[in-house]
Parts: sequence; structure tokens; C-alpha cells
Amino acid sequence: MRLNIALLGAGFIGKVHAENLAQNPSVGFAGIYDLDEASARAVAEQHGVPLLGSLEGALNDDSIDAVFITTPPDTHPTLILRAAQAGKAVFCEKPVGTNLDEVDALLQSLADIDRPVQIGFNRRFDSHHRALAEKLKGGAIGRLEQVTITSRDPHPPPVAYMRNTPGGIFYDSMIHDFDMARWLLDEEPIEVYAVASSLIGEELNPDRDPDTAMATLRTASGKMCAIQMSRRAVYGYDQRLEVFGEKGMLQSGNVQVHNVRHYGAKIIGEEVLLNFFTDRYRQSYVQELESFLLAVLHDHPVEVTIWDGRQSLALSLAALRSATEGVPVQLNYPHAPRQTHRDRLQ
Amino acid sequence: MRLNIALLGAGFIGKVHAENLAQNPSVGFAGIYDLDEASARAVAEQHGVPLLGSLEGALNDDSIDAVFITTPPDTHPTLILRAAQAGKAVFCEKPVGTNLDEVDALLQSLADIDRPVQIGFNRRFDSHHRALAEKLKGGAIGRLEQVTITSRDPHPPPVAYMRNTPGGIFYDSMIHDFDMARWLLDEEPIEVYAVASSLIGEELNPDRDPDTAMATLRTASGKMCAIQMSRRAVYGYDQRLEVFGEKGMLQSGNVQVHNVRHYGAKIIGEEVLLNFFTDRYRQSYVQELESFLLAVLHDHPVEVTIWDGRQSLALSLAALRSATEGVPVQLNYPHAPRQTHRDRLQ
Amino acid sequence: MRLNIALLGAGFIGKVHAENLAQNPSVGFAGIYDLDEASARAVAEQHGVPLLGSLEGALNDDSIDAVFITTPPDTHPTLILRAAQAGKAVFCEKPVGTNLDEVDALLQSLADIDRPVQIGFNRRFDSHHRALAEKLKGGAIGRLEQVTITSRDPHPPPVAYMRNTPGGIFYDSMIHDFDMARWLLDEEPIEVYAVASSLIGEELNPDRDPDTAMATLRTASGKMCAIQMSRRAVYGYDQRLEVFGEKGMLQSGNVQVHNVRHYGAKIIGEEVLLNFFTDRYRQSYVQELESFLLAVLHDHPVEVTIWDGRQSLALSLAALRSATEGVPVQLNYPHAPRQTHRDRLQ
Amino acid sequence: MRLNIALLGAGFIGKVHAENLAQNPSVGFAGIYDLDEASARAVAEQHGVPLLGSLEGALNDDSIDAVFITTPPDTHPTLILRAAQAGKAVFCEKPVGTNLDEVDALLQSLADIDRPVQIGFNRRFDSHHRALAEKLKGGAIGRLEQVTITSRDPHPPPVAYMRNTPGGIFYDSMIHDFDMARWLLDEEPIEVYAVASSLIGEELNPDRDPDTAMATLRTASGKMCAIQMSRRAVYGYDQRLEVFGEKGMLQSGNVQVHNVRHYGAKIIGEEVLLNFFTDRYRQSYVQELESFLLAVLHDHPVEVTIWDGRQSLALSLAALRSATEGVPVQLNYPHAPRQTHRDRLQ
Repeated sequence: MRLNIALLGAGFIGKVHAENLAQNPSVGFAGIYDLDEASARAVAEQHGVPLLGSLEGALNDDSIDAVFITTPPDTHPTLILRAAQAGKAVFCEKPVGTNLDEVDALLQSLADIDRPVQIGFNRRFDSHHRALAEKLKGGAIGRLEQVTITSRDPHPPPVAYMRNTPGGIFYDSMIHDFDMARWLLDEEPIEVYAVASSLIGEELNPDRDPDTAMATLRTASGKMCAIQMSRRAVYGYDQRLEVFGEKGMLQSGNVQVHNVRHYGAKIIGEEVLLNFFTDRYRQSYVQELESFLLAVLHDHPVEVTIWDGRQSLALSLAALRSATEGVPVQLNYPHAPRQTHRDRLQ
Repeated sequence: MRLNIALLGAGFIGKVHAENLAQNPSVGFAGIYDLDEASARAVAEQHGVPLLGSLEGALNDDSIDAVFITTPPDTHPTLILRAAQAGKAVFCEKPVGTNLDEVDALLQSLADIDRPVQIGFNRRFDSHHRALAEKLKGGAIGRLEQVTITSRDPHPPPVAYMRNTPGGIFYDSMIHDFDMARWLLDEEPIEVYAVASSLIGEELNPDRDPDTAMATLRTASGKMCAIQMSRRAVYGYDQRLEVFGEKGMLQSGNVQVHNVRHYGAKIIGEEVLLNFFTDRYRQSYVQELESFLLAVLHDHPVEVTIWDGRQSLALSLAALRSATEGVPVQLNYPHAPRQTHRDRLQ
Repeated sequence: MRLNIALLGAGFIGKVHAENLAQNPSVGFAGIYDLDEASARAVAEQHGVPLLGSLEGALNDDSIDAVFITTPPDTHPTLILRAAQAGKAVFCEKPVGTNLDEVDALLQSLADIDRPVQIGFNRRFDSHHRALAEKLKGGAIGRLEQVTITSRDPHPPPVAYMRNTPGGIFYDSMIHDFDMARWLLDEEPIEVYAVASSLIGEELNPDRDPDTAMATLRTASGKMCAIQMSRRAVYGYDQRLEVFGEKGMLQSGNVQVHNVRHYGAKIIGEEVLLNFFTDRYRQSYVQELESFLLAVLHDHPVEVTIWDGRQSLALSLAALRSATEGVPVQLNYPHAPRQTHRDRLQ
Repeated sequence: MRLNIALLGAGFIGKVHAENLAQNPSVGFAGIYDLDEASARAVAEQHGVPLLGSLEGALNDDSIDAVFITTPPDTHPTLILRAAQAGKAVFCEKPVGTNLDEVDALLQSLADIDRPVQIGFNRRFDSHHRALAEKLKGGAIGRLEQVTITSRDPHPPPVAYMRNTPGGIFYDSMIHDFDMARWLLDEEPIEVYAVASSLIGEELNPDRDPDTAMATLRTASGKMCAIQMSRRAVYGYDQRLEVFGEKGMLQSGNVQVHNVRHYGAKIIGEEVLLNFFTDRYRQSYVQELESFLLAVLHDHPVEVTIWDGRQSLALSLAALRSATEGVPVQLNYPHAPRQTHRDRLQ
């Protein structure tokens, strides 16, 4: 059984997915589309797949079973809806959108369309984090009480990127950690409190956009979660999870390039951490695709739903408001999800 | 050079200090006083030192150079003042008091009395944490940006104790972590936000006093600190510090009973952590006494001042209010300290 | 540039190589041959490649550039020679043979045939061990003095296999460690001393073949190497290297399935080790193939030469004799190699 | 109950014991004797204990219950015998002597004298190694099969010392590891094979005495032990034990000054190891004294007997001969011990 998938979007993350689509034996890589035709052509040539002339054409092509959406975030809700209406299964990179009303409208529009839609929170598919989650959900530490997430990038994004996404540390970056938090808490946070500072320095962050942040989440049953985030860690990509409960604690630690230890005259040293997400989380994108194939070809539940995408976005925007106004922000849920937290781990 | 020290208070922590006073070759252990004469007599006999008949007598005895105050917290301000007025050098267990106004009054009263007064935040003298602080202050990670403190007790205090100190998780326990935070931040926090839950269960915490908490601190320059606290960790006394800055990160990890690793058929295992503060921090009390001797006998600056005690108390009370009211609480400083953060590390 | 490679041998290790040949974009997988036609056919069908009818045919087929030899060890010298004489580049699984005279004859026969021949000591291509070797050869610990190799299999081979290869712990298993030793020592051992015992128990080793062994190597300049080997480690595949020298020490540690740590009430635990070489060293086979492609297509020096294969075999046989006779055994080299220790790391 | 102990020998190791004798509340430190009166006087004054005028006087003094012998090794057998004949309990530093015949004669002479005699192999009392031994003897890894001991000093002894003890790496240094090996194997080695080189360099070892060595031990039941030794490790005092058996493996790792980890831009680093035995094994000397007090005051079996001392010496001398002659050396036991391996752990 093979799934024919077209890729919409030939940007940085689009290329990451293109690589995996090209190598997966259960995927027919049906073509690539991007408004920027030169970018799309480069991907098409690299992988020997068709250059798709138009979005309309791709959506109307019955030989295409599914689309991967890796276009800019504000286009996501419209594209998801059009693709689902055209009968395609949909994978859409995070975030599901940039505006909560639009996403809520999308949820309503999709209510009657029975197509699988998966949102791209790849970290759930990292083997280390996933082993932690499986042990947690298997009862290894009993009732969960506290979650601690450390998430520091090796270096900030380009200045132009930061300029276009003010406060992006919350809705571009920490949104991943909010998804991790919800995944582990297994209960919706009802309040978020966040602080943010601009500490990295003029050279890397001339506009003094927030680059260092912390957030605290609370659930109705009293579980709590702390997130520590920075856009610059000189020792590499710092990605750690810790869950604490009545019967113990689990930690998913950092990953190093190799495990060689050097005992010298002044220091016992190890390699610094893997540099960034394309290294550290390379395999997670491969597994994410496998999960999508299971959902579409084998009728498994979608592991990361639009509701998951909606909630992470809601938390991001609430955190940004909290950090701006200096108050905790409550979350409320006008549109109850039909199904939350569906994943194979439960 | 020897310092004659009388101990006021023969409770649990008084006995810890008695042990160290008895063994330190620079200390003349001049006697023990407690309202509960039987307790005092037991300590006196164990260490072969005089049982002091009255507080008055002890303070008026010119052969006594200094006092160690380990009486109940609400008596601390009065006793510190009386001892200092009697010309004694003073060591007082944490907290410096329970009421901020009383402590501020004490600070004013002491303004004209030039006697060393040290508050008992022993964790500053732990060799691991201290090595971290020395590296931090030596510039190992450049400008500090984030502090993360994990602080979990192996088990909650007795029910009766918790009943008498509602919300004590903040002003009895987390007060240590606030002191750690100020020590590491090297700048006064201007805001605290805290959440607390009662999760441990009826058996150990029948009154459902908060037993699980998190706090976030912010300084004027934008540094931030996260504290994770629980009154029950089945794997032992969990005490970790992490400081993150422009040039890297330092971690002071947990301490295990021994370093033996067991590779079995199902698991690679190590011993759980040292059980509680009298094990984990045993040496820190010895070093704390050494620091007091340096201050009194050799004129070093006092390492942990009344101002330090005042500020940790202020943060504790603010955190309790924040957790209760659900808002961040600002700190303000009516009585500017004459000298803050005096310590040998600077 | 693509290399057309035929695979000779469809046994266990042949299938491992088949997988990698099929997936490497620079390889044309030209077909598979095995005396056991059914086995060959299964591999051919799995990867959609031709079933080769005869060895002769394969060697005479000009469209085939190279062969991978994964037939039984005693056939290796003959097949290597025939393939090289037919003008093929050759990769041959370890060991290069089972009889030293045959291998020496092969070396002489190949003296005038200028075809690349690589022997399959895959561990040299493991990323962890290789990082250690690169640091070592880059001077990280100055002059090397001691090497320690720990090498324990999770479980012994099948009884029938052990019955057919008495003393195989040395020439089947420890031969890998002798290759590691020579690679790291960068100097030929001149003496080997070995001890061996049968300790595992009747159930897994009914013939009481040696299953537990240690060996010590010595070089002319005084470097020394210790090897610890067992055919059964309940905690998984134990594969460690340690090199010690004038300026420090390097260790290449074990590799775990994931890095999750569990803090429980009785133990702090981690996952046991990866189970065996097809897991632990999976990537090393991929890199080994890359190295062969570099040698054949890009004229790099062969990383693991016939001389390397000859010397590991010589050490294995000497160790077996040492363990049997209870004396150290000297190594001498009648046929000086034209080129030793050629590898990119030097 | 208090034991009056006189110390015979005011050299380096004598001072280490003097410190512990002075601080132990169950010891009456009865005085110090040394041929070099100035050295003895310095120790006497430091601890406020009597300077003993003559050996004869000390041995005839009925108020002295026991002696600690820390004189040069060749005087040990004579002094042990005279002290035991005078009715004293005896603690004697390692080695028990330098000549096997003298030690065997001593064993025979002591056969009829029922006084406790303990030999100073302090490493058995290190808390980490002891925890490993307790787990081993408690069955944690089932039947023992392999022991690996790594033992590297931070720097060689002074040139003059090495000149006076040629081959001392075996009988001065590795004798500790032979004792560890026997303690863990719980069975007498029947053969030792050793290699030694002079690699450290002219500056620290101008006479080119062996400074780097390995040894392999074998027992009758087939257990085996590997020892790796160097007189110079730039990263500190490297002291590790590993025991491997049918049900797993135990490791007693190195001990660091503190547990702070530094994540920098180039390396993740930890402190180098504790510098030498007076740091690393400080507590083991205190516990060794406690064990002696248990034996003498409370009739526990002596933990490290003369037989233990005899056997470690025998192994040392056999290893030296093996390294010199290039052959394995068998051990045989003309004088069967009355009691071997007596220790509380069994």
C-alpha cells in the first residue's frame, strides 16, 4: 500500500519533509508546489518528482491522496480546509495558524469532513521523549504532579525573521514546548503565566525582541509545568524533559554527537550537544511521517490533531499576553473538541 | 583563638549545631539553654557542657562570646536583638523571623549595634553548590540569565508540624530556595509568581496543605529564576541548581550515597539519593560554623546577613500571597540595606 | 559515479550487507549468488536484483565492478584471489581466512594484482569508536601507553555453531578486538598472552567450549593492551574502548536504546544496552560500505587491508595457542606487508 | 571501652594514622615512637601525646593495649612478632614484609599466639568499593567471572624512592590491587602473568624503572582478573573496580571533588579526579581503624589478616618475576592458612 503525497511549500522545513517523502518506500512523492517556482523546481529536480503548476491542479488531481502543507503559517487554515474539502488527507506543519478565531472557524468547518488532518509537532516522535512518555503513561511514576521542560536553541533565528515575528519566542518556538506540556500533562492547562526578557545582546537581536523566557502552566487538578527557554545556548541545542510524580521521576536528557569522554589534565570533557533541530530531531520527522501513514493507510487515530494545534497556539498567544501585561492568563475553550489527546500511547 | 559559644534551643536543629560546636577545635561550647529543661539537659550531658539556667544568665555571662539561636522562629527577632545588645556575636537559624514588620524593626534597632549577626542558610556552604557559585561569580558562564532550582524533600514533615504552619511550604521550605536564588542572581528579585497544589494525598497530608509548588522570580535587569518544589520525592532528597548565561551553563547535581552502578538484565541502576538534609547537607553545617568563626574571630564579612534573612522571608510571604491570590506579587524595599550580598565569593 | 557490486553469500551477514547495498545511491546492486540457491533467491527477490546463476558467471561479467564476499571463512582466500584476478574490487567479510599459510600465500599472489581489497572489520567505522580514534591520532592524549577493550556479547552463538568452531571465542569473536587493538596501538603487537575459561553453564554451552577470556598484548615499544571478553552479558552488548597516554585518557562508552533515566523508590535506573551487533553497529556497516566506495571510486587508500586481516587472524590463533598451552606466544612476520595501517585517520 | 594504642613510626603514613588515632573517641593515643626522634617529637607535640623513649619500653608498658606499626616494610615481620609476643594487638601497614620466607616464618611463630593482627589494606574500607563488594557477596551478579581493576596514580613517587625500590610498581603499588583482586575473587589466584614498561619519561623516571604495567590473574575455578596500572595519570587518581558475573556487572567508579558540570561552547566538562590516596581514600583509613577496634574490643574477626598480607606479597613478587622473565608464574601455598578471607562481608 502506497500513499501518493504532494508537497505544498519548498521552504526550509519543506525541504526536510521532501527528503523523507523521497526515501519512504510507502510514499509516492507526487510532486512539489510553491508560489516561488524556482524553489519548487529545485526540490523537484533534486528528488526527480513533478513540479506542480498550480495549487488548484494539485488539489483536483485524483491520483494525489494527501498533501503536506509547509507554506507560511498564516496560509495554513485556508489550505487545510481546501485540501480536506478536495478529499485529501492533510499533514500541516506547526503552527496550525496564527489567529485563534480562524482556527476555531476551521475546526467548525472540518466538523463534517471526515479526512485525517495531522499537525506537525515532530518532538512527540523523538525516540527519547517518546520512551519517557510511554513510561509515564504506563504508570512508571504513578500520578503526574510536575513537568519541567528545558528548551534552548543554539542561536537565534536571522534578524529579519525575528523582525517579522515580534514575540515569536512564544508562538514560533515555545509553541513546541506547550505541545510537549499538553502531551505529558494529559490534561488541559487552565492558566499560563510567562516572563520574557531581551538579554542576548544587540548583535544577534538588534530589535531587542524577547529572547529569554519562562512560563508556568497550571491544570484544573493541580498539576503544574515549568518551561525554560532561550534563543541562544553556546553549548548546543538543549532539549530536556522531566516529569515528576507520586512514585518517582523520569528524565529525557540531551543527546550528544558521540559518547567519547576525554580525561585531561584540567578537565574531564565531553562533546557539546547536537547543534539544532535538523540534527537532534532528524529521526523524529521520519517517525512523524510514519505516524501519518499509519493514520491514513491503516486507520490509526491521528496522533497530533488540529485541536492539539489549536491549543498550543492558544497557549502561545496567552503566554505572549501574560509576558506583556504581567498577569497570569486564563484559558477557556469555547469550542469543545470532539476528541482530544488521541494518541497511540494512551 | 577560641570562641565561647552558648547554644539557645535544644530542638532538632539545635542538636545538629550542638554536634558541630562540640567537635570544632576553635569553639568553646559554653553551655546549652532551652525552656524545656529536659531537652537542654540531654544535650548538656551528651556533650559534657554546662546546662544554662536562664537566658538572662547566659546573656549576662561575659565569658560567653557568642550565641547560637535555634529556638522557634517567632522568637528570633527578640532574641537576636537582646543578644546583640548584650554584646554577643549572633548566629540565628533561618528564618530570621515570621513577620516582616518585626524584622524591619530589628534591622533598625541593630543599625547602631556593631555585632556580627549571621542567619543560618546552610546550603550556601555545601561544597557542590559553592563550587557552582564560585565558577559563576568567576565568570565561567558570563552574564547570568536564568536560574533553575529543583528542591524536593523525600517526605513531608509530621502532620502536626504542617498543621501548625499552614502554607509552610513557602516560608519554611522554599525560603531556602529563595536564598539560593538571591545568592546566585546577585540582584534582588522584584516580582514573584507562585502556584501551589495539594497532591500528595490524605495519608501524609490530611489537611491538604499545599505540598507541591512552583515559583518564578524576576529581577529588574531581566534575569529570571524558576523553582520547583515538592514535599515528597520517593527517590530521595532532590537538590539541584542550574545557572544559564551568555557563555554556558553550570549544574550542581544530586549526591548519591555511593557511586556503584549495577548492570542487570532489566535495568542499569544506581543508588537512590541521600535521604534528607542532615545527610545531604551535613558538611554544610560544619562549614557554616567555620564561616561564622571567620566573621567573628577574623573579621571577615558575615556571609549571610539579616538582610538576606529579611529578603528570603519577604519572598516567601510574597510567594504565599501569590499562590493564594493567583497574581504575581511585587517586592519593594522600604528599608534599604546598608550592605547586601556580602560574601567572600564576590 | 556508481559502482556495480555483486554479493557472494546469502547468509546472515550477507543479508546485512544486501540491505546496505540496496539502499546506497552510489551502488548498483548487480545480483546475488549463493551455493544455496533458495537463500540467494530470497535475497534477490527482497531487493529486486538478479539471481546470479554461477560464481564463474559473476566473475566473468564485465558489467560487475566489485564483489562482496560473505561466504564461509575458509573459502575467503580462494574467492578473494579469483575475484581480484578477474579484475574486481573486493570486499571480504572477516576473517580473511582460517589458515595463516593460505593467507600468506594469498598476500603473495596479490602482490602483482593492483585491485583494492578491503576486509570487513566494521567496528572501525562506528562513529563513537572512530571519534575516539580520531582524537587519539590527533594527539589528544599524547603518546599512547595502554589500551583496554571490553567486549561482551549478550548471549553465546547457537550450540551447533560453537560445536563447529571450537575455540572460536578467539578467532571468531575476539578477532574484532585484536583489530581494534592494532588500529589503536598503531604498532604491531609482538606478543600475546591469553586465558580462557568455560563458565557460562551447560545449558548455553554444553560442550564447555571457552566462553570467557582475557588477553594481553605487548608491542616492541612497550605499549600494552588488555582485552576482556565474554560470550554472555545479561545487560546487553558491552562494547567499550579506553586509551590511556601521557596526556590523559579517552573512553568510548556503551550505547543505550534511549537516554531516559527513571528515579524510583529503590533505584535510579537506565535502559540496558543495545542488544547485539546488528543494533549497536548497524551504522558501522553503512559507513564501511562508504569507505569501500571511496577506495574504489575515488582512489582513497583501503582502510582495512588484507594485511590487517592477516594480523588479526595471526593474533587470534596465537591467543588460542596461548590459552591452550599457558604461555605467552610471540608473533613474527615472515611476509612484511607492503603497506600497513593505511587509513584516513593517519 | 577505650583502646590504648601506641604508634610506632612517624613517617608519612604514620602521620595519617596519628590524625585518626587522635580523633577517635574509642582510642587512647598512648604515644609515638620513631628511631628518628625529631619526627616522633613533632607528631607527639602536634597531638599532645607522649613521646615514647624506646621500642622496648613501649612493648613492656602494660597500659598500652595495641600498637600501630608504620615503620619501613623490612622491619614489619620482626616488629609484629615482638608486639604480639608482648601481648599487644597489632595493626601493621602494608606490606606485611618484603621477603616471603620471613613472612612464612612469622605465620608459624604466630600460630600459638592468640593476638589480633591486622594488615593495612585500606582500600577494602572505602565506602564505594565496599558497597560494590557487599552487593557482589550478596549475590547481585550471581557467580563472579571477571574482575577488572584500574589503578593509576596521579604522579610517580620521588626519584630517590623509586631508586630504592626497583620494580616497586608491583610490590609497593600493585600490591593494593592484588589485595582488591583476592578480596573480590574470594578464591586464591593460582597464576599471575604481568607485563611492565618504562614509558613515563626520563624527567620523572630517570632510572627507567617500570612505571606502566598490566597483570592477569587466574583461579582454579576459572575466574580471571585484569589489572591496569600506571604511575602517572594527568587527570588524577584513577581508581576503579569492575566485577562481571552470570547475572550482571557492578562498577565502582571514580570520585570527583564536586559534582558541578560546566556546559561551555567547546566542551561539556567536569572536574578532574581527586588527587591522591590521602584525598580519595581519606575516609578509608578512618574506617580501617574502626574495623581494628571492632576486632580488638568487640571480638570481631580481623578483616585483613597476615595471610592476606602474605598472599598479596606473594602475588607482587610473582608478578615482578613474570614481568622480568616473560612467563606466567604459578602460585603455591606451602603453609596453609588457618583462616582465610575472614571478613564481615561473608
